[in-house]
Order: sequence, then structure tokens, then C-alpha cells
Amino acid sequence: MAEVGARPSPPPPGGLPRLLLPLDRVPPFLPPFLPPSAMTRSRQETLALRKQLIGSSCRLFFPEDPVKIVQATNQYMYDEHGNEYLDCINNVAHVGHCHPEVVKAAHQQNLLLNTNSRYLHDNLVDYAQRLSKTLPEKLCMFYFLNSGSEANDLALRLARQYTKHEDIMVVEHAYHGHLTSLIDISPYKFRNLGGQKEWVHVAPLPDTYRGIYREDHADPALAYANEAKTIIDQAHERGRKFAAFFMESLPSVAGQIIPPFGYFQKVAEHIHKAGGVFVADEIQVGFGRVGKHFWAFQLQGEDFIPDIVTMGKPIGNGHPVACVATTKEIAGAFSSTGVEYFNTFGGNPVSCAIGITVLDVIEKERLQAHALQVGSFLMELLNQQKVKHPLIGDIRGVGLFIGVDLVQNQEKRSPATTEAEFIITRLKEELIMLSTDGPGRNVLKFKPPLCFNARDAKLVVEKLDQILSDLEKRSA
Amino acid sequence: MAEVGARPSPPPPGGLPRLLLPLDRVPPFLPPFLPPSAMTRSRQETLALRKQLIGSSCRLFFPEDPVKIVQATNQYMYDEHGNEYLDCINNVAHVGHCHPEVVKAAHQQNLLLNTNSRYLHDNLVDYAQRLSKTLPEKLCMFYFLNSGSEANDLALRLARQYTKHEDIMVVEHAYHGHLTSLIDISPYKFRNLGGQKEWVHVAPLPDTYRGIYREDHADPALAYANEAKTIIDQAHERGRKFAAFFMESLPSVAGQIIPPFGYFQKVAEHIHKAGGVFVADEIQVGFGRVGKHFWAFQLQGEDFIPDIVTMGKPIGNGHPVACVATTKEIAGAFSSTGVEYFNTFGGNPVSCAIGITVLDVIEKERLQAHALQVGSFLMELLNQQKVKHPLIGDIRGVGLFIGVDLVQNQEKRSPATTEAEFIITRLKEELIMLSTDGPGRNVLKFKPPLCFNARDAKLVVEKLDQILSDLEKRSA
Repeated sequence: MAEVGARPSPPPPGGLPRLLLPLDRVPPFLPPFLPPSAMTRSRQETLALRKQLIGSSCRLFFPEDPVKIVQATNQYMYDEHGNEYLDCINNVAHVGHCHPEVVKAAHQQNLLLNTNSRYLHDNLVDYAQRLSKTLPEKLCMFYFLNSGSEANDLALRLARQYTKHEDIMVVEHAYHGHLTSLIDISPYKFRNLGGQKEWVHVAPLPDTYRGIYREDHADPALAYANEAKTIIDQAHERGRKFAAFFMESLPSVAGQIIPPFGYFQKVAEHIHKAGGVFVADEIQVGFGRVGKHFWAFQLQGEDFIPDIVTMGKPIGNGHPVACVATTKEIAGAFSSTGVEYFNTFGGNPVSCAIGITVLDVIEKERLQAHALQVGSFLMELLNQQKVKHPLIGDIRGVGLFIGVDLVQNQEKRSPATTEAEFIITRLKEELIMLSTDGPGRNVLKFKPPLCFNARDAKLVVEKLDQILSDLEKRSA
Repeated sequence: MAEVGARPSPPPPGGLPRLLLPLDRVPPFLPPFLPPSAMTRSRQETLALRKQLIGSSCRLFFPEDPVKIVQATNQYMYDEHGNEYLDCINNVAHVGHCHPEVVKAAHQQNLLLNTNSRYLHDNLVDYAQRLSKTLPEKLCMFYFLNSGSEANDLALRLARQYTKHEDIMVVEHAYHGHLTSLIDISPYKFRNLGGQKEWVHVAPLPDTYRGIYREDHADPALAYANEAKTIIDQAHERGRKFAAFFMESLPSVAGQIIPPFGYFQKVAEHIHKAGGVFVADEIQVGFGRVGKHFWAFQLQGEDFIPDIVTMGKPIGNGHPVACVATTKEIAGAFSSTGVEYFNTFGGNPVSCAIGITVLDVIEKERLQAHALQVGSFLMELLNQQKVKHPLIGDIRGVGLFIGVDLVQNQEKRSPATTEAEFIITRLKEELIMLSTDGPGRNVLKFKPPLCFNARDAKLVVEKLDQILSDLEKRSA
């Protein structure tokens, strides 16, 4: 285990493009030394207890041969033997696993006070003020909660209270959370569970690679938005009324989708005309990940402003925090009922101190610009692979949100599900954590901590190249 | 502010009853010193920013003159001027505000690893194992989440998946959380919002002081359970099918209610016959607060075992954690759908480390026995007041869960709402935090951190005596 505590600086990588930021920089902090005594159980023993005590709906990554992780720092995770894994998927450990400033902020506030928001506290208002500076002026009212699911559920309540309507439109394959109300608006889940409620409407996924309007369409944004409009019109004929259009700014479990530019504006126009609001779910994709902007919805242009934005996952670097930002009008309608909204842990001083520090670190370490540059570099490397490997059908992404869509056939674009599974299993053997997603589970999904660097990008693409070549040799 | 860091030991109280535990013990830890520089805003400035940025549905305690709290330790909170408030209401800071062992556990784990439960980790299984030892053997499967609301929502999903039924019975004035699905099953909320859904059934609150069957009834447990049975029978005639009976083991916002002994067994029999399950909501009342037992449902006797238990608030001493415990059969039905349950932050190593430490502290500091003894002492002192003050209609409680029901008229038992509000406002001026609850907002609600001691009990009852005497003089 000695290497965990005393990992040497990485060798300087060769052949990197000229970049403004030191992409291959040594992580700004080294992992603390882990005394082996902290590990008491073997992996098999932990697994056996888990099977005995934890509901099996809670799945393990690589269930046949799960990984026991005991420590992590930056973009690296360590198993019980001290093996170092490169983490390409943890979008929660946003500024790096166990970032020392975040850990320190939590500890300092934990020593002083952790109570509910029925008392005045500076952290709550400071945090709201800090977040407001990242958002369009209109989004100026804040609610703090404990999870992205809680945030999306509150967004539902806000939208319904404001519009006095019930119906929700979402896009195909969407996932908005694990709560009853969110399973209902998540085709990714309800297609396999209770089915579609009468107040839920599913628009086609604006996927220009595999969707109904593709890259060869003259105006896919307009075409997909018209589909949403048709659904609204048809629902109106049946007397339905829309509270909201709900969408991840970049659909993630749907397969790392980048909606065509201008789609949100057009859909927002339709949903507004129907009396509903636009909810941008930024739970997976906010906080600078997309590089060009702090929020992924901003990729659609300055003329687009959602009515409600929900935030989660990366917001507290692993601490359970979440937030809903909305307009004065919507917040006003919600409070006009006279009914209190109380969230026991939401907006406590510790969660807010952590949230503020995550914003500080993103700024200080210029992680948004870093995500843009490393993401572009990774896209470039991947595109070089696309030329070589017929298994790669599409590479799409922005910043450190990237998908590699694997296909059995370039023409038919049929998902290469088995191959994708094989690749992530092989990568795991190479100590690289990558995952798959999309309805066909054939999209390799990059969403690493933002400190992920060019050296990491080179490593993972080199390994990917080898594995793809092996796969192609086999099938040849 | 010097007194915050260097508060002297309290003087030994006089006239305490003989007790096994040192109820007047000096808190086991002193507050850390707070540098005044940490406080940058005046209370008015914080308040102004809060009004500007935070949805006003998020209410302040004493909205006309809110308190700014900057630090807390044990059962004491400190405002920005260093005034020390006795906290009689924070049931989240269960083992005492900022308990050093809990803070240390959080910090040590935060330094090492905070990631999701898709990797194996000992803390998750250790915590589940520890909790299982506090519960009847049948409740052996665990799910970890971030809030009591998330726990109750999962309980709903589990109950429905297991029974394949939809309907839920709750008791009048119940509150089970802030999510869409839980507002639906909380008469306390839905009576003022969307109204009652067709799948929700409300049984009378088994309140033997103000309910339909009172202390003079021969068998109120049977009578109230029969009411539930009648509702089931009537619903069956309309073709409805019950998934669950959902109830706080001790209804809290309903006014600190102690259900009659044996009620749960009888209701459980009826709901089981109807194909439903019994969900015991222990979010407010679990973890030793009731003194005699670790769980409040155990007050009903050893022959009662719920099918699902939900936990929250005190579980992490302020850290966002929650848990659902259930049977193998219910967990099995939930996983048989093949649909994953993933909760991003739920069951992370930090939350579990904190949860384990809270259990350790309850044990080490014998807080359950302490709650029983201090609670009994407080009840004794309050009962002495009842003889003196006609405003006190009823005193009920168990351990450190106590309600003082104030009435305008002993016969009519009409709620003394204004008087209750006056009392907590006056107590606040005396630096004592107490709150009111119940449909008439006339029940003084004691639910302090479990380190609350006999000296605190004496102090609050002395002040209460003075204020009640003042009130009575005025109206005389």
C-alpha cells in the first residue's frame, strides 16, 4: 500500500498539443496515507454481507466481479490492494475525489454548526448569492435540498403550482430520478415498471445520430421541436394541460446526447404558449463540465433561459446537496398557497459551506476552462480512433461530457452492445473505470472528475485503441 | 463572545431526584472557540438577503424576529452575540450539536473516500449490520438514502411493488414528507393543497385526549383499529386495494400523540388481511428517543413487527442520511422487476461512517437510558405544573418525546393557540427554544437533543411556570 501514500509524480507526457493550461499538471494534492488497519474485511466477505443485507435492486458496478474501493483522490481510486484506477465516470467527485479544500470546509463547518434553515445563517444566503451569479438574472430564487431527485420533485411541484396544470412532457429515454413522481416522468424507468401515466407525454429524443431526424436533416432543431408541438396540440384536443417540459440539458442515460442548437428555444416557445414552463435538469451536466459554459443549457445560446433549473450530483463533490433555481414569479406562486416547504437537512450550513467551496475550487483551479481543453483534446484523440475502427459509429461531446457510440454496422448504426460491455470490462482490467449507457448500452460514457488531464486522456485512448484492435482481429 | 469558548461548568442543581445516571453531568465536550471574524453579516443583512434569494415557502422560526445561530454544541445554540439558547426542539442533533466523535468520523472518512454504492465498501455493510441488531430479525434488508422523505417515498414504492396494490391508509393530521408522493399521503399538507387523492384513505387519529375515543373509553386501541377496518371494508366495496397502512410510531405534527397500546397490532392485522403492509415511520421518533426502547414502534409490545421501517432526521446527527429497513420478501419483490434502484449519494462511505458513529455514541453515552430518565423527570416536573395551571390540559410523552397540550377550557379541551404562541415567544426571550405543534398549534413540543439534562428540564419548567402564572394573572 506504500504507493498510495507516496505516489510519484507522473512522467511528463509526450506529444501533447499546445494548450493554455498545464493539462498534465501534477494533481494539486496527494492522497493521504491509508493505514492498512482500516481495512478489515476481504472483498469476498464484504460482497457476501452486501448480498445478505442490501436490497439487490441496488446494483454493483461489474456485479460478477465487483471492485472494492477504499480510498480516492483527484481522478484516481484505490482498491484494497492499493491498485490505482483511473476514474473516467464519477461526475459527482466533480473537483476531484476528496478535494482537500472541500473536505476542510466540511470539517470547519461541522465543528461549528449544522442545523436546519429555520434559523438565519450566512452560508445559506452566501451560497444562493454565489449561485445566482452563475445564472441568468431571471433565475434568482433558490431552494436547497439533499439530492437531484428531491430537486426534480420540487421542480414538478413548483411547475404545477405556478401553472395550475398537471401534465408533463419529457423526451424518450429520459431519467429524472428515483422517486415515485420522477419514475413517472422517466421513460427509461416507467417503460419497465408501471407504464405511462395519462399526464405524461413523451417527445422524440432530439438525437441527430440515431433519432428520427439526423445530421443530414436541414433543420433538426425545428423538426424535433415541431414533434413536441404536435404532442401538445394532440393533448390539448383531449383536454390535457401542460405544467412543464422537463429535460436534461444534455440527455445522459439516453446515450450522451447533444440536442441540436436552437431546440430548447423552440420547445420553450411551444410549452410557454401552452401555459407550461421549461425545466432544465442540470443534475448531471452543470457546474462547468461542458467547458464553454457553466451550465449546459447555455450551449443553446444566450436567448434561451429556462424557467426552472435543477442541480445535484457534482454540486457538493459527493456531499448530499441539491438546488432548485427559479424565477420570482414561480417562487411567489409556490408560497402563495401559504403552505410551508420544509426540508430538514436542505440548506444546512455544512451543505452550503461545501457548495460554496466547490464553486471556489472550480474558479481557482480554472476547471471549466480545463474541462473544455482536456475535453477537446480527448475528442481529438477519439476522432483519430474513429478513422481506424469501424466499431466507432459516432463521437459526440462537449467539454468532459463525451460519448463514443459503438455500432455493429456503420450504415445501420445498430448498437454494439456486447462489444461495449467487453470494452469496459477489459478497461477495468487495465485499471480504467469507464461505463456504458444509452438504450442499447453501447455508448461509452466519459464524465470524469474535472481534474482529468491530457495524460489520462492519452492513456485511456491508447488502451481503447488496443482493445478495439483486438476485437476487430477476433471478428475478422 | 469569550463565554462561548470558555463556558464554565454549570453549578450543581439542587433538589434532583435520585437517578441512576448523572443527569446534571457536564456536557462531555466544550464548544470550540469561534473567532468573531467568521461572522461578517448583521442579522438584518442576512435576513434581507434571505428574503431576496430564498423562496419564502421556506419559513423562519419566529419570522417576525428570527434568530441567527452561528454555533452550537450539545443542547446549546449560540447567536451572533454569543447568547446561549437552550435547545428543546432539535431532534436532528440527536446526540448533541456538533458531537466531536461524529464530526471526527465524518472528517476521517471525507479524507479517504466518498463515492457511490456501486463499489463495495465496508461502511455500507457494517452500518446495515449494526442497524439490523437494533431491529426484529425479520427486518433484515436495508436501503440507504439522503432524507426521511426519500425513505418514505421508497417505502411507498416497496409497498406497492410487493402488494401490487395502490391505496394507502394514513391517520388524520399525518405528515410524511415534502415530496409529491408524500404530500399526497399527508393530510397535514394535502388538506391545504391539492386535496385528497382517490387512493388515499384517512383513519381517525388515535388520540385519546382529543380524538373520537378518549381516555374514558374501555378499549380505545380496539375502537380506533375498528375505524381503520371500516375504512378498509368500505374501500373494498368500491374495488380499491390497499398497499399499506402508513403511520409515524408516535404522531408528531399531529400534536405529540401516544397511540393506545395494542393499536398497531390490530391495525396490522386488518391491513395484512387486506393484502397491504404496515409501514412504521420512525423518522422523528427512532434511535432511542423514547427511552424504553430503541424504536418507538416497540412501545406497542414485542408481538408487533412492522413490515417496513423508515428512518431519518436523527440518524446522522444532521448529516443527510436516511434508511429503509424491510423484509427479505418485500426487498425480493422490489428487485424482481429487474429495475435498478440507484441513489447517487445514498449509502456513501461518509454517510455510513457518520451513521455508525451516531449508534456508537448513543451506546457509549447511554443516551437511551438517559432519555428515559430525564424524560420521566421532565414529565414529573410538568405534571406538578398541571396541578397549578388550568391552561395545561394534558401532558403526554415517553422518553424525550413530550407534549404539553394547552387548553382554554379543561372541559371542552379547546386549543389555547394564542397562549401557546405567547409562551414560546416569551421562552425565546429567556433564551429557550421550544416549539408548538398539533392541528391547533397549541401543543408545546419537547424533542431536544438526547443530552438534554435534568438541569435543563428544571430551567425550562421554572420559566414555563412563571410565564403561565403571568398569563393567568392577565386573564384573571
